[in-house]
Amino acid sequence: MAKTRVGIINVTGYAGVELARLLAQHPEVELTSVTGRSAAGQKLNTFFPHLTGLNLTIESKLGAVDFAFSAMPHKESAPEIIPLLENGIKVVDISADFRLRDAAAYPEWYQFTHPAPQLLREAVYGLPELYSKKIAKARLIANPGCYPTSAILALAPAVKQGLIEPGIIVDSKSGISGAGRSLSLKVHFSEANEDTTAYSLEGHRHFPEISQELALLNPKHPPSITFVPHLLPMTRGILTTAYATLVPGKIAAGKDGDKQLRDIYADFYKHAPFVKVVSFSPHTKYTWGNNDCYIYPTIDHRTGRLVVISCIDNLVKGAAGQAIQNMNLMLDLPETTGLQALAIFP
Amino acid sequence: MAKTRVGIINVTGYAGVELARLLAQHPEVELTSVTGRSAAGQKLNTFFPHLTGLNLTIESKLGAVDFAFSAMPHKESAPEIIPLLENGIKVVDISADFRLRDAAAYPEWYQFTHPAPQLLREAVYGLPELYSKKIAKARLIANPGCYPTSAILALAPAVKQGLIEPGIIVDSKSGISGAGRSLSLKVHFSEANEDTTAYSLEGHRHFPEISQELALLNPKHPPSITFVPHLLPMTRGILTTAYATLVPGKIAAGKDGDKQLRDIYADFYKHAPFVKVVSFSPHTKYTWGNNDCYIYPTIDHRTGRLVVISCIDNLVKGAAGQAIQNMNLMLDLPETTGLQALAIFP
Amino acid sequence: MAKTRVGIINVTGYAGVELARLLAQHPEVELTSVTGRSAAGQKLNTFFPHLTGLNLTIESKLGAVDFAFSAMPHKESAPEIIPLLENGIKVVDISADFRLRDAAAYPEWYQFTHPAPQLLREAVYGLPELYSKKIAKARLIANPGCYPTSAILALAPAVKQGLIEPGIIVDSKSGISGAGRSLSLKVHFSEANEDTTAYSLEGHRHFPEISQELALLNPKHPPSITFVPHLLPMTRGILTTAYATLVPGKIAAGKDGDKQLRDIYADFYKHAPFVKVVSFSPHTKYTWGNNDCYIYPTIDHRTGRLVVISCIDNLVKGAAGQAIQNMNLMLDLPETTGLQALAIFP
Amino acid sequence: MAKTRVGIINVTGYAGVELARLLAQHPEVELTSVTGRSAAGQKLNTFFPHLTGLNLTIESKLGAVDFAFSAMPHKESAPEIIPLLENGIKVVDISADFRLRDAAAYPEWYQFTHPAPQLLREAVYGLPELYSKKIAKARLIANPGCYPTSAILALAPAVKQGLIEPGIIVDSKSGISGAGRSLSLKVHFSEANEDTTAYSLEGHRHFPEISQELALLNPKHPPSITFVPHLLPMTRGILTTAYATLVPGKIAAGKDGDKQLRDIYADFYKHAPFVKVVSFSPHTKYTWGNNDCYIYPTIDHRTGRLVVISCIDNLVKGAAGQAIQNMNLMLDLPETTGLQALAIFP
Repeated sequence: MAKTRVGIINVTGYAGVELARLLAQHPEVELTSVTGRSAAGQKLNTFFPHLTGLNLTIESKLGAVDFAFSAMPHKESAPEIIPLLENGIKVVDISADFRLRDAAAYPEWYQFTHPAPQLLREAVYGLPELYSKKIAKARLIANPGCYPTSAILALAPAVKQGLIEPGIIVDSKSGISGAGRSLSLKVHFSEANEDTTAYSLEGHRHFPEISQELALLNPKHPPSITFVPHLLPMTRGILTTAYATLVPGKIAAGKDGDKQLRDIYADFYKHAPFVKVVSFSPHTKYTWGNNDCYIYPTIDHRTGRLVVISCIDNLVKGAAGQAIQNMNLMLDLPETTGLQALAIFP
Repeated sequence: MAKTRVGIINVTGYAGVELARLLAQHPEVELTSVTGRSAAGQKLNTFFPHLTGLNLTIESKLGAVDFAFSAMPHKESAPEIIPLLENGIKVVDISADFRLRDAAAYPEWYQFTHPAPQLLREAVYGLPELYSKKIAKARLIANPGCYPTSAILALAPAVKQGLIEPGIIVDSKSGISGAGRSLSLKVHFSEANEDTTAYSLEGHRHFPEISQELALLNPKHPPSITFVPHLLPMTRGILTTAYATLVPGKIAAGKDGDKQLRDIYADFYKHAPFVKVVSFSPHTKYTWGNNDCYIYPTIDHRTGRLVVISCIDNLVKGAAGQAIQNMNLMLDLPETTGLQALAIFP
Repeated sequence: MAKTRVGIINVTGYAGVELARLLAQHPEVELTSVTGRSAAGQKLNTFFPHLTGLNLTIESKLGAVDFAFSAMPHKESAPEIIPLLENGIKVVDISADFRLRDAAAYPEWYQFTHPAPQLLREAVYGLPELYSKKIAKARLIANPGCYPTSAILALAPAVKQGLIEPGIIVDSKSGISGAGRSLSLKVHFSEANEDTTAYSLEGHRHFPEISQELALLNPKHPPSITFVPHLLPMTRGILTTAYATLVPGKIAAGKDGDKQLRDIYADFYKHAPFVKVVSFSPHTKYTWGNNDCYIYPTIDHRTGRLVVISCIDNLVKGAAGQAIQNMNLMLDLPETTGLQALAIFP
Repeated sequence: MAKTRVGIINVTGYAGVELARLLAQHPEVELTSVTGRSAAGQKLNTFFPHLTGLNLTIESKLGAVDFAFSAMPHKESAPEIIPLLENGIKVVDISADFRLRDAAAYPEWYQFTHPAPQLLREAVYGLPELYSKKIAKARLIANPGCYPTSAILALAPAVKQGLIEPGIIVDSKSGISGAGRSLSLKVHFSEANEDTTAYSLEGHRHFPEISQELALLNPKHPPSITFVPHLLPMTRGILTTAYATLVPGKIAAGKDGDKQLRDIYADFYKHAPFVKVVSFSPHTKYTWGNNDCYIYPTIDHRTGRLVVISCIDNLVKGAAGQAIQNMNLMLDLPETTGLQALAIFP
């Protein structure tokens, strides 16, 4: 039987090229078409030499495919996707163009008017740990941002079970590939190396996404979130540290509480093959190149606060790997197909 | 007139060698004696080739000096210092042995019984931005830890002025030199490179120091602090992100509030030559090799939270530079003497 | 049919753990036993959390296996291997204990008397690009060192075809994982980061191995080699730059010569699935995590010198990946089985 | 007496900003004017926050100065300098515009026709270790490139004394700041981190400069040089490894030869305050932020080859520091004025 033909719109950024790497090794689909703008006409494995075996030419327009990923920048992604949907092609969109349910949020956070608000109602937020059933039936998936993936997975069990007060701090630390392949002084080696900084303190675009999803988990007591992202001198990885005050009486005191908390988290994620709820402080390096998310829920017993650490590879679970996890569900394949490579360490 | 002769006990760790670098270039004192344990007998500039001009031999016991720095590990520092004080030699202690006012905190946090509790009352916490007058008159200074320096400077104005509620989150990110020169897998290049992790979630030793000092600034409403340190793949630098809820009615809404807040901070530090209160998000790299502390106080207007970023070089303002700043005050020298080198960028 | 049971002696170093990662994903063999010394009794995936799926306990002695890898340090490896061979178990030795054909070289370069000189005659040097047929029939493989792999592959075609004069310079640059997992200041993050250095200028242990193998390729005119290794601030990767003077008249002048040279190299490696002879300057990053070796042969036309660049991942093609490539040949499996993962970029 | 007023043309690149840092701390001159193109009108310490104390505005045209540095790119530098010279202002040019004595080399290596060939005869190559007397009397200094500084200092004693045969290999490893502040994928953090590569194998622009200067040291037997530069994942530092065959009979065999060689080097540099001839393999980190050059001359006794390692900070001894060293000589100041800061370690 012929494999499902899949395509990538805009393969030349980091999410796109990581999709290509993972799809090239996926046993059940075949990557048959990739597009790029300035790179159109070049061989994919000349443009990205590490994609050695992939015999594809970067095209200016997507060829015939059964399934598509868009790795276009926000605002430019929706116009590429709409005609594909009309032609019956299912799509996972890695951009933010279908992540926010409220069309009014687009002018505010992304400075454009959304071209297809009706699709915002239809699109499913592609976090399989929360929405696997909806994803399986969807034709359009809004693949989550890298920070939201790390923050929502860290907090979902606590918010859903009402363990915490609404005030939440999300302090995220990201490797520099999260800033993309575009050139800027911010990603210039000599300036980013041996440096760390906080940014977007006035409001990062991933904030409304985190806020929307956590509110949906507990609509009666929607959380009030402060989110601060930071850039670290490493290529891959996001570590999120989330803080909130425990609602009194929900979690036992002392070590019993630690265990109880971990059990709640483990139970919440019992069907999530990529989430590892652990009892030690995880390293981003444990996820290098793979789709895992480590979550370490813990309690600051002096103050009664929940502190949760999560670690992902921003380009895999934070982008391309999660997109393929969504595709697997949509194609009725086992969720982990093509995503079982171990992390590379050290 | 002869220069003040100064000595360093345990020059072979990173705080010790950074002291040697800075003292070698100090115009008003002369580094005349340095000690080390396993390295005793070696030339200092053979052991540390970058100290090219310093013609000293590492000794097993401190020679005749007028002023001493101890860079011994905690527990081992106090026994070195006590006889010096008895001989009338002023001391800046870089270890934690005199930082905590409550002797009972030592068994709890450092696993030893304090040998001289009366000195805990006498010792002055060497944060010149808070205690310059006491420091000038002291004979024993407890030089602050690197994390506490970054955290206390970030929060002191807000706590002192009662701008914030007691609940405080301190999320600190440190370069790896903060873990010292001792060998461990935690500081092994191949494991620490391209990695980040949170650690000491059960309680870091710098927590009681942060807690003690912030409580002293507002004893009626002592803060309730959660402190989580993180290790980043860089050699130097600490960036601290501190979060707290603003007390309603103290700070104006909107941009006026931002300005008002910055003015309060700038006023608080108006006599602090090394503190730069800024209106942009600072980079640790702006302090590489020098004694500055950048502070960026800001407001998350959506939630009414204060968010403060601070940046220091952990080995300079977080250790050796601050120790020299204290010495300058104790010797009645201008506070900035020998500490005016610009940061090195990039 | 039952899979071949394989074991790893000393899984706790970087070569051992990389073997475990690759074998865990190998479709034709099953990793059934791993040993370690101080770590015996611990779960492998507690010791190395990235090996998530591997349900093995580190043992003090190898269990029943059909095939073994030794990742013991030199001198300690041979005594582990000899009894295995006597029991009919084929072995790939990652240490240097069987690499040198001349037993007298061991006291000189490794400070021990070889315990089984007769095995030096039997052992096959495990560089499949040179010795695939012998490897297929061997019971004991001496897996090459990381530097020798990069150097020999860079030079073999030129030496074999007599293209160059005997004088050869091998300037190699290695990531720090090549120095192993043992602790030392040399691999301390704060000292190795933002630094580079040459080392072992008095003679590195990989020199006799490079010299032996290149001499075997052209015994009448054995090369006279200077080899200088360097440590760079990165975790993985070796880039070797090799220099030699072209024998006049063998290679055409100008661009024709470049092409002719590349053709000779491509032809030499036409049956080598992991060698990529390229016409651009390769990056070590193109091999991150996989078994490829990039070779860029070029000519300095001003001086008539050959300059060859090679890139490998020192832990894969330079150690564990090559060991599995050898195992594949010995088990009559396709050479690339289990080694086809694309490099991870960026 | 008023201090000499100095200016920097094009302060916004890495050589320019490093000049500003060093001049701001120079006791005998005053930095009074800095220019930039796109940044004109901005405060210097807004553009580069680490230059905290410097109260200057970036101008589009140089103000009244007594002495100027040009940090313009090649081809654009000469037209800025010519009018200054005509106005009697001495200039140190950090670009390549006056480094090559043969005007015909400019079209070949830099793709422009030199606008003032007569100045090529007058300009002095600003390597004080070779030309301090000429520099002291010059009005126009061509400040050497970073690679040439490291290569020429490593080889000058051996070439000048006729110790080596003409064939020379120069293998240089540079930090990424050497590639400048301009944006490109080559300096993008995510691509340059955890990577190394050789480049410009077809001929780097610093080659003719190295070749010219070494030929001048031994015109009867001008060397035949192969030069290959490499980029390493660090911000600052160049380590050069130079190889050549010793002329038989000049240097004693064995350890005596090592000592004899070091003595020849030490004698050659006995009046060079920044050159450290050492008997151990130096680290680039020993020069971090300062003007030193470490040189380790050694012999590969197996082959009779000279191997010399040199280390510099590419932005200091390789650019801005050397420029100030030249200025000091031209202003009849002690050569080390303003350049005595110790390297920062770790």
